[in-house]
Amino acid sequence: MKRTRVKELLSSSPGTTPVSAKGWIRTKRESKDLVFFEINDGSCLSAIQVVVDRSTAEGAQALAKSDLPRLQTGASVAVEGTLVESPGKNQAVELHATSIQVIGEAPSDSYPLQKKRHSFEFLREIAHLRPRTNTFGAVMRVRNRMAMAIHEYFQQLGFTWVHTPIITASDAEGAGEMFQVTTLPLEKIAKADPSRFKEGIDYSRDFFGKPSYLTVSGQLNAEIFATALDRVYTFGPTFRAENSNTSRHLAEFWMIEPEVAFCDISCNMDLAEGFLKHVLQAVLRDCAEDMAFFDARIQPGILNQLQEVVDSTFTRITYTQAIADLEAGMARGVSFDYKPSWGADLQSEHEKYLTEEVYHGPVIVTDYPKEIKAFYMKLNEDGKTVRGMDILVPRLGEIIGGSEREERLDVLEARMKELSLDPQDYWWYLDLRRFGTVPHSGFGLGFERLIQYVTGMQNIRDVIPFPRTPKNAEF
Amino acid sequence: MKRTRVKELLSSSPGTTPVSAKGWIRTKRESKDLVFFEINDGSCLSAIQVVVDRSTAEGAQALAKSDLPRLQTGASVAVEGTLVESPGKNQAVELHATSIQVIGEAPSDSYPLQKKRHSFEFLREIAHLRPRTNTFGAVMRVRNRMAMAIHEYFQQLGFTWVHTPIITASDAEGAGEMFQVTTLPLEKIAKADPSRFKEGIDYSRDFFGKPSYLTVSGQLNAEIFATALDRVYTFGPTFRAENSNTSRHLAEFWMIEPEVAFCDISCNMDLAEGFLKHVLQAVLRDCAEDMAFFDARIQPGILNQLQEVVDSTFTRITYTQAIADLEAGMARGVSFDYKPSWGADLQSEHEKYLTEEVYHGPVIVTDYPKEIKAFYMKLNEDGKTVRGMDILVPRLGEIIGGSEREERLDVLEARMKELSLDPQDYWWYLDLRRFGTVPHSGFGLGFERLIQYVTGMQNIRDVIPFPRTPKNAEF
Repeated sequence: MKRTRVKELLSSSPGTTPVSAKGWIRTKRESKDLVFFEINDGSCLSAIQVVVDRSTAEGAQALAKSDLPRLQTGASVAVEGTLVESPGKNQAVELHATSIQVIGEAPSDSYPLQKKRHSFEFLREIAHLRPRTNTFGAVMRVRNRMAMAIHEYFQQLGFTWVHTPIITASDAEGAGEMFQVTTLPLEKIAKADPSRFKEGIDYSRDFFGKPSYLTVSGQLNAEIFATALDRVYTFGPTFRAENSNTSRHLAEFWMIEPEVAFCDISCNMDLAEGFLKHVLQAVLRDCAEDMAFFDARIQPGILNQLQEVVDSTFTRITYTQAIADLEAGMARGVSFDYKPSWGADLQSEHEKYLTEEVYHGPVIVTDYPKEIKAFYMKLNEDGKTVRGMDILVPRLGEIIGGSEREERLDVLEARMKELSLDPQDYWWYLDLRRFGTVPHSGFGLGFERLIQYVTGMQNIRDVIPFPRTPKNAEF
Repeated sequence: MKRTRVKELLSSSPGTTPVSAKGWIRTKRESKDLVFFEINDGSCLSAIQVVVDRSTAEGAQALAKSDLPRLQTGASVAVEGTLVESPGKNQAVELHATSIQVIGEAPSDSYPLQKKRHSFEFLREIAHLRPRTNTFGAVMRVRNRMAMAIHEYFQQLGFTWVHTPIITASDAEGAGEMFQVTTLPLEKIAKADPSRFKEGIDYSRDFFGKPSYLTVSGQLNAEIFATALDRVYTFGPTFRAENSNTSRHLAEFWMIEPEVAFCDISCNMDLAEGFLKHVLQAVLRDCAEDMAFFDARIQPGILNQLQEVVDSTFTRITYTQAIADLEAGMARGVSFDYKPSWGADLQSEHEKYLTEEVYHGPVIVTDYPKEIKAFYMKLNEDGKTVRGMDILVPRLGEIIGGSEREERLDVLEARMKELSLDPQDYWWYLDLRRFGTVPHSGFGLGFERLIQYVTGMQNIRDVIPFPRTPKNAEF
């Protein structure tokens, strides 16, 4: 008999046609000859209730008495039966079993995931089992839907997904601390005579013939493709070797970085605002059950908050306006730990104030002082600010960062000189300005931070299958 | 005026409504006062022909004489005008310009991509510009369509995309040579007193507190999720530090690895056959122009070959049958460089013979001798063979490898003992068999090899944006 997944069973009508379900037991209870247990197969948050009445001949045949203790939380089972209208209020249908097969037991004295609630800290230690919990199942389904919504958004606009490289020998990134990638035998190097290394490590013996690292951003590579295919995006893993043990940092995380030719900062803002709304809408529409779970258990009110973002028009202000708003707030008695001042980066408390107190919704801040932004951002005519843009949202703060890129060769070279960057390290990046240069823009965001924002999960380690953090690369 | 992409313009009807196109010049020619040039924006293979007649007042205004020499191959331009039925046979419409703006020049004395054809070897040296060529534009569009077809296939079947980790500290992979990932200061280690390292490297000082590597496969991690969410797949970068300088090897490549609970090898074969057909169909249907280019310029006949695979039913034979077929061939006078013999792996020439000479189409070979397959494959009742499956296709050979996994704890432990694998290294993998174990299966394939197969591109370095190979991690 063809098996039906639980999600489909739960939305089916009662009927006499036999059905088959397979999955893992979440809970079990007995009442005289009646046995109830719920099975979940990860297709949705809910489990389907299986009922067997051992006082009937059919029931006794479906479930041998010796099998009863094997129906443990976590055990895998195959059940056949019929869908019957459920008298319970939690589900429309339940499965009256005519056959129950225990496939794999989960002995209750050793299975770590018992019915009681576990702390997220504990679940991180058994990251190989946590996908079997309600919360992580929901996170993974929402994560998947968000990932596909990201692809949908860009594909429908004619973008090409570009797989920018993970390993880079480019010295030119500078966006953060990097992991080194090597095939050199570290043990041998350590035990060798140091005089052999007077000149330093001989990288001609390393795999790539020079020091190589894990990428911190695909942006510069994406610009190559934007100046050929017009509209591209990356969606892949990136790395930071920062020793940050916080609930917001991962050493390995996924980033999304669109890059668009013939697109100025205004077009870039439209693209980013549309992007965020599209992803939120997809989740609110298609992950209703999981999102209701997050609203009830993790972050009360999150459904409304996200819907408000979808329904809003993002306010667009300059950095200079933002500073003025913050100063006006101070004049009215608002106090900040960090005094806002033109030239300094916005702090979380500032972002929170702007989105929650001043504009009551998402805010796009543009035209930052060049000193606090990257070299590749397009210089404004004032010579002081660049066409950067950050999107701030209530509750989280900055969620997207981007800019129009500097497409003028002479201006870019002058800017690199100011920052003591060696043009030779960027020869190919400069070539994009040397040959058929075009105005272009892009933005970037961390996928896991977006998932945190959408689910309300407090710790970023709980929205990625296997978090990599200082001293932790388990599983 | 809102710009329209070239792909859309080319499929539009002539009309009097002004349109705007932006892109890069591919070719230009002049004939008296008539100027013709073609612009491409990467949205499709074709360029749109722009015509301006400088003998008319409109034409003279559209294109200043001083701008004429700036219309170079590779220059970026913005053109406004109207779509007119083209007298030429290569296109239905052409763009009669009323305004031409040269955005960025591409001086012909320095721009490396002139009109003449370039070797793929040369283009690899200018990998930042090669996306602007016909071949690489086509490869990237087909690659993108294939990537999305992969997502579509699994998503429509209710699979969850799982991002398995790139950095792993697991010693348990063994599928190939690994890159080490480290934040230890190599230079300092090299110059330090070797007596400090009598005990070896102190990995407690490394980022993850132990030696860590780049993953060679996400399979074992995917199994974790299959035994919770039922149906999952990975699609992400994987790594091999093998010093193989061939047209088929990359140090960094993308892999697809589905993993399915409650799925035996027969179900696995259905899934893999359906997968391959879905991806090929999507490309044949949606990338007609690019695929016609590959058929004409790269691999004549490829369209028919791929269609034949879509229309075929894959032949399913055991390894034992395959050896018998090869031996029967030898008895009829076929000669092989490697004599086929039960217990040895199939060679390319054997795969070619089976698909092209014996079965005239794709072949799925199952039930291999356990000695030549991985420890996790399910042991058959004969105790000699395992439920591995390889899919072989004409022209390429093996394109997919997979198996039903060993879900019996005792059998898996015994198998690991035979192979001297330490169960402690696999504690979490064994837990999946200890708690609620289920029959499950999966397969894996390299994305770039699949792209080679679909496009006919001979060198794998030419189907990935930036190839990583021994001594090469440029751009």
